[in-house]
Order: sequence, then C-alpha cells, then structure tokens
Amino acid sequence: MSGPAIDYEVFAAGDVVLQCGLTLRDTKLAYKCHGTLNRERNNAIIFPTRYSGRHGDNEYLIGEGMALDPRKYFIIVPNLLGNGISSSPSNTPPPFDRARFPNVTIHDNVMLQRRFLSERFGIDRLALALGWSMGAQQAYHWAALFPDKVERLAAIGGSARTSDHNFVFLEGVKAALTADAAWRGGWYDQQPAVGLRAMGRVWAGWGLSQTFYRRKLYRDMGYATVEDFLVGFWEGLFLQRDANNLLALIWTWQHGDISANDRFQGDFDKALAAIEARAIVMPGSTDLYFPPEDNEYEVARMKRAALRPIPSIWGHYAGGGRDKEAVQFIDRALMELLAS
Amino acid sequence: MSGPAIDYEVFAAGDVVLQCGLTLRDTKLAYKCHGTLNRERNNAIIFPTRYSGRHGDNEYLIGEGMALDPRKYFIIVPNLLGNGISSSPSNTPPPFDRARFPNVTIHDNVMLQRRFLSERFGIDRLALALGWSMGAQQAYHWAALFPDKVERLAAIGGSARTSDHNFVFLEGVKAALTADAAWRGGWYDQQPAVGLRAMGRVWAGWGLSQTFYRRKLYRDMGYATVEDFLVGFWEGLFLQRDANNLLALIWTWQHGDISANDRFQGDFDKALAAIEARAIVMPGSTDLYFPPEDNEYEVARMKRAALRPIPSIWGHYAGGGRDKEAVQFIDRALMELLAS
Repeated sequence: MSGPAIDYEVFAAGDVVLQCGLTLRDTKLAYKCHGTLNRERNNAIIFPTRYSGRHGDNEYLIGEGMALDPRKYFIIVPNLLGNGISSSPSNTPPPFDRARFPNVTIHDNVMLQRRFLSERFGIDRLALALGWSMGAQQAYHWAALFPDKVERLAAIGGSARTSDHNFVFLEGVKAALTADAAWRGGWYDQQPAVGLRAMGRVWAGWGLSQTFYRRKLYRDMGYATVEDFLVGFWEGLFLQRDANNLLALIWTWQHGDISANDRFQGDFDKALAAIEARAIVMPGSTDLYFPPEDNEYEVARMKRAALRPIPSIWGHYAGGGRDKEAVQFIDRALMELLAS
Repeated sequence: MSGPAIDYEVFAAGDVVLQCGLTLRDTKLAYKCHGTLNRERNNAIIFPTRYSGRHGDNEYLIGEGMALDPRKYFIIVPNLLGNGISSSPSNTPPPFDRARFPNVTIHDNVMLQRRFLSERFGIDRLALALGWSMGAQQAYHWAALFPDKVERLAAIGGSARTSDHNFVFLEGVKAALTADAAWRGGWYDQQPAVGLRAMGRVWAGWGLSQTFYRRKLYRDMGYATVEDFLVGFWEGLFLQRDANNLLALIWTWQHGDISANDRFQGDFDKALAAIEARAIVMPGSTDLYFPPEDNEYEVARMKRAALRPIPSIWGHYAGGGRDKEAVQFIDRALMELLAS
C-alpha cells in the first residue's frame, strides 16, 4: 500500500524572517514546474496559487498549444504559505503551529519565491508573472518589488491592494467560520465542521454573479439545485481544508498591498508607477469582490498596462478555469502579452 | 417609572390560517398611521416595513411637503409578522413560540393586512402600495393579489420574487448566525451573541456597494474606520434583535413570490401581467442582492410599469433613507406617481 503520489517538490528555505517580525523556521515552499529552463534562463514564468488553491489548480492555463506552453516556457507554480502544502498552520511544528502560525504577507511570499527562484534555478528575470485572485496579488507584488526583473504581468481577478469592501467580505467569511465554538480560537482537535460549512455558504453568494444564479449555471457544474450546489460544492470545498490554514490565508489576502513595505512606505500610487512590466489586467466583468473599478484605478497609474475585463457571468470565478470561454479569452491575452 | 412610550396600535386578528397550513392564534398586527382617512376613503396608502424594520423606520419618506404628505394621505405602516412587534417568535406563547413559530409568507402578511384595512377602517382601495426591500415585496404582492384595489405601486429596492442569488446571500447570513452553538436550534435562553455579530459582519459586505467602501462613506455615518463600522453599526444592529425573529423573517424573505399561491400557481409571468397598478420600480443602481436586472425582467412583463434605478453608491441601502439624494429621487418619483 502506498500513499497518494506526491506531484510536487519542496524548497527548504530554512529560517525566514517575516514582515511581522517573527521567524518562520524550517520554511517549506512546495512547488511544481512545467517545461524546461532554457540555457539563457529567460523563459521562466511564475504562476502562484490562489486562495486555498494548490499547484494542480493552475493547470487549466498550462498546456501544449496554449500561451503557457511547457515546450516553450519554464512555468513555476509555487504554493502560497498557509495553503496546507507549503508551510502552514497545519504542518508547522510547535511553537508556531496552528493558532500561533505567524501573520504572513504577500510580500513575505514573494520575497521567499524570489530567493527560491534564484537559489534553486539561478533565475534572475521572469518573462511573465501571472496569477488569478490571490495569485494576481502575488504577481502584482512581483512586478512592483522587482520592476527590472519582471518583463510582463498578467493579473487575473485580483488587485494590487485589497480594497476595503473586499476586506469586509472576508470579515464576513471569517466571522461565519469562527462563530463555531468548536473552532476554539484555533486550538481544535477536530475541524470546526459547522463553521467550515457556514463559511462555504457565505462564500457561495460572493463567488459567482447574480446572473450566474439567475441562469442556473450551477447545473452546468453538475448540481441539480441551489441547495445541491451549496452543500455539494461550497460546503464540500471548505470541509476539505484546515480552519487555521483558511484563516491564515484570509489574513494574508486582507493585508495584500504592493506598497506595504519599506520600499514604498504605503504610497500606493508610487508602487503602481514603479511597475515596468508590460501588463494586461483582467478582472471578471461581474466579479463581486475584485470588481473592475479597483483595477481601473491601478491601470491608470501603471506605465504599460491595459485593462481587459473578462466578459463573463461567472463573477469572481471567471478567471478560475471553469468558464471555458473565459479561459480562451485569458489564453489569447497571454499569447498577445508573451508575443510583445 | 414608566416604560418606553408605545407609538403604535395593534389589530387583534384572532386566528389566522397560514399558507403553510398552521394556525397563528391570537395574531397581533402592530401598525402606525399618519394622516386622516377622508370621507371617500380613497386617500389610503400602505407602506409596510422592511426586514427587521419597525414602523418608525419608514418615516424618512413621510412628512408635510413630501409625496407621502399626512395632510393629504392616510398612510398606514403595518409591521411584518416576525419583526418583534407584530406576532413573532419572540412574543408568541407556546406551543408556537420561538423555534416553533410557523413559516409565514409575504402572502400571509398581505392577506392579513388586507383584512386589517377592511375591518378596521373600511378601506377597500389603495391610492398607493409602496415599500423598500421586504416592504417592496409586500407592495408587489398587494398589486398582484388585488389588482383592482391598488391604483399605484412603488417598489423600492425589492422584487416580486426572491431571486436565487438573493436566496443564497441569505443562506450565508443564516449560516453565520446558526453556526453559533449558543443558538441551540432556536431554544436559547440567552441570545446567541457571537452568531448575531457574525451575521452583522456578513451583511456588512452585502448591504452597501464596493464604491461605498472605496469612498469611505461610513465616515459620513459617523464611523471612523471599517472596523468601527463593522462593530458599531453592523454588530450593534443585530445584537438588538432576537435570533428567532431574524430567522423567521429570512424565511419569509427567501420565499417571497407573488405567484406562490392558489391564484397564480407559480406562474410568475402571469402574476406580473395581472398587476393593473401604475407602477414605478426603483432598484438601487448598485444593489448587490436586489440588482436592477431582476426588476428589468418584471417591468417588461407589467402593464404600466416604469423602471427607474436610483443612481446611488449606497448599494441596497440606497432606498433606506440614509442616502439623502436618493430619498429626494424617490420622493420625486412618488409625487409623479401620485399625481398620475
């Protein structure tokens, strides 16, 4: 009998001092690569994971004949700290385990990824940084923090700074999860299942658009009714996860801000203006928590950015791979960007 | 020492058989009137309450010089069953108290209101039925169920049938409240405060628009920061309420449908077409749970209806009285409607 196949590798990063001032010891960065790094080391693409996503969840945009063609590019998919595979509340030994897992920023993630690419592969420049949702937040950070090393940026359904409304939406999600007394402030022995289910039900209204439900597109996803979708998809999604991991990632998301660092000192406009990458920014046209308006503000302050909303009624999920037309839309934009 | 002044009257409706087949005994309908019924009894306006609102919450649209001028009209504000003043889980004696309070529909409310107006005042016709949010749902029911008795309809931030997305949003709110084990399936001795607070935090993202938060309009409401708004306004709002009442009203809201009755047998288009009233339908242009699209569908199937979205960044709250420009917009529309 063998366990499930491990389809990723791990970069052992040792001690990592975080923005919050704590040291994450014996840090593990799990990743998966597609394709081969060329001799010039100029075909590298970074494609970090989304909220609670894992490296496998990014494969809808990777494939032969697609923009992210592994025959041509070396595509690295690093797992976010907190996602349960990279260092997380659920897999870090005491004393920084579980409820004591330190607050990790997107900045922390990206600084770690930078070191990883450099030490493991000798990569100094990226042909492209891209991502969806929290992945887009990381890609934005890459472009702002390393403007001379990131040639292109594709931000899909994400922003350079988490908006106040987006923050509030996440507060609601968090409140639903932590209303379950079984959560015990993070010191549970069993997952707080009621809270995880409640979190799923809260997220259900936010993740898709009003029109998605009006047209009953959950049927196309294999769910017969709204309740079938709420239980089968949304509750099921979060029941597979660890509560502390989910909360750690919410903290990371809520504090995403390309200017929240020594370099930009909170000057968001300055951080946007620092981005040199040729960029295509693709919000879902009906996204309820990363709405196009936040990206409009950003694109207007970036040097070489185009705003290209994805015409989709899948709300936030427009960029996540389930809307096949949206995937084609994104893939075409990536082709154009990589050809430039 | 005296208690707080009672500023409403009560219609003792006796036994009311509900759509669900249960009998609500000794039913109390609390109401407040503004103005005087004229001799012809043709100046009556019904203006039912919103979710968890009370009669006093409707007074932003009532006043001398406004469309709803009590010198001219007799304006009756009935409290929804379940709102804590009319018959509710919190004030109904056993065996139909608390978690056993029966499922009440909007149809039940409107049929009761109809009997109340007839028996108490001898009113047979209404110059106008109007309301905001769940109040609009009731006004819609009035117009569809009594097409020859409702001359005008103003539906503000509400729909004739609760959409699937709206239903899902409410499932999230409900899940947050009921994730608190102190709720005890409704058989609590003390209010489930953690759940009520969580419910408030979930609602916070839904009630206003993304742009409301982007422009920090909570400051205009007297809250210094987002967290100040979340605790001071949202948690505070629901902590004042009874959990079973809130859940009963969510059930009522979720099942709002002008065609869910013997007369229309679920034929929604037929119910819309049955409305004879001259109507102005006013969604908030940025409302996240009663978005303009649902009203567009309705207006296209009504005989004499105009869609007039309220230009506002206050999301659902556009129609609730806090956006002063929106109040003027609504008041002007009501003047026009009443003059027609």
